[in-house]
Amino acid sequence: MNFRPFLSQAAAMLTHDVEVLDERGRRSTIAIPAERPLTVYVDKRELVTLMTLGGAPEALTLGYLRNQRLVKSIAEIQSVQVDWSVDAVAVRTVRGIADIEARTARKVVTTGCGQGSVFGGLMDEVDAITLSPTARLKQSVLYQIVNTMRTQQSIYKQAGSVHGCALFSADGELIYFVEDVGRHNAVDAISGLMWLNDISGDDKVFYTTGRLTSEMVIKGAQMGIPFLLSRSGTTQMGHAVAGQLGMSLFTRCSGRHFLLLTGGERLLFEPEPMDMALNAR
Amino acid sequence: MNFRPFLSQAAAMLTHDVEVLDERGRRSTIAIPAERPLTVYVDKRELVTLMTLGGAPEALTLGYLRNQRLVKSIAEIQSVQVDWSVDAVAVRTVRGIADIEARTARKVVTTGCGQGSVFGGLMDEVDAITLSPTARLKQSVLYQIVNTMRTQQSIYKQAGSVHGCALFSADGELIYFVEDVGRHNAVDAISGLMWLNDISGDDKVFYTTGRLTSEMVIKGAQMGIPFLLSRSGTTQMGHAVAGQLGMSLFTRCSGRHFLLLTGGERLLFEPEPMDMALNAR
Repeated sequence: MNFRPFLSQAAAMLTHDVEVLDERGRRSTIAIPAERPLTVYVDKRELVTLMTLGGAPEALTLGYLRNQRLVKSIAEIQSVQVDWSVDAVAVRTVRGIADIEARTARKVVTTGCGQGSVFGGLMDEVDAITLSPTARLKQSVLYQIVNTMRTQQSIYKQAGSVHGCALFSADGELIYFVEDVGRHNAVDAISGLMWLNDISGDDKVFYTTGRLTSEMVIKGAQMGIPFLLSRSGTTQMGHAVAGQLGMSLFTRCSGRHFLLLTGGERLLFEPEPMDMALNAR
Repeated sequence: MNFRPFLSQAAAMLTHDVEVLDERGRRSTIAIPAERPLTVYVDKRELVTLMTLGGAPEALTLGYLRNQRLVKSIAEIQSVQVDWSVDAVAVRTVRGIADIEARTARKVVTTGCGQGSVFGGLMDEVDAITLSPTARLKQSVLYQIVNTMRTQQSIYKQAGSVHGCALFSADGELIYFVEDVGRHNAVDAISGLMWLNDISGDDKVFYTTGRLTSEMVIKGAQMGIPFLLSRSGTTQMGHAVAGQLGMSLFTRCSGRHFLLLTGGERLLFEPEPMDMALNAR
């Protein structure tokens, strides 16, 4: 990678302690996740306000610009500077974003958690996407990924009420893990990190604790990722988009259970170790 | 109630069967929730595309216009006609929406599931809201509500991957229950039904299966509802907004357990039946 924009390093406090009463009137203190506005300015023009946990604001901003197709290459971005004292991030581009008014005019309010707004025309782009035809995933690697997520330290375990997304290599190594109050923010932040570090999605596995609604599947496709795993489920349109692209959609991933809905040819079934596991139950 | 706009009755199929493979390669059929675009046209002008389950599209459209503060009174709406053959809903207003371009220009992409986009300035309105100072909730009614939700027939039980929202009276009667792929759609649909039937939120209880992020709390406040219950948790900003308004925020509602985070004076603790229940465990 040749180019990397200047980035601030403005991670914020991720949890906040509050007093609660329980059903017997007992007082205690629990942690809840932070949630703060982050208004994105691009070349001094206000673009959008994202509500975020605040753990990876620079990557979130980059991924948002990337996934909304407002910026085509990371080389177009000069700097991303977060200033929590004003809840804002200032993005400077090298040459400005052409036609930004028109390109942000259409709104789709999506079903996802979090960053639910997609600027116009994303569905049109799905047809143009081709995922790696040769990417395969071993069943044992799938189990390894699910287990890694189960044991991962997280804000979720401390405070609940956030979604986690992660990127894994084809052999099950954790590359990135991001949590946010909305799963769309978390996937955008991962997209931003991939962009920054020039990591292709071609042979990668994407895991989310949230649902694989249409927009999540479309974002996965935009990142070129052939494998989407969820602890939760999917929707009709998420399923349809994945099927159209030949993407492998795994839902209800938990322990050694999963459901494979589309892209079955990409999974390398490994019956023996699994049956051993079943017998050991 | 004097006025009611003309509404279509265009509920759509809410689940969709798909074939899946499990971890042993066994094939079966499961139901997943529908998810479809619904493009809202107001007086022939395209406003937004909502991704929805499709169970209550007219109420969703009304509640969206209401919660975005685009229409002030139900009497301004002449008709709401959904046509699934083109995935669109046509809203006709009596006199048009003044200044619609300017009022839909600012975007806040929120942390909620679903309809995450709020047009500008909602936070500014929170200060102007006053909830009923006298509204109280009995602990036994809270338990009744949680139990009603637990036993409620639902798309969630059939197909997963949807959020449910419900409105209850102060004595625990279920008034409305709406599910959608995003919890913001579900809350908007309830708001639309309340608007249609001239139901005030003053003494009502709102229940959601989803998280009480800032936008959910703000929407509850806009509906004038003093009690928000969630099976899940909240976030720092949801908590802050509720505290500011003196709203009672209950999280982790399950069985006879809950956490009360703000607005404690509104709960009428009933220790005896609860302790009896505890002793009976």
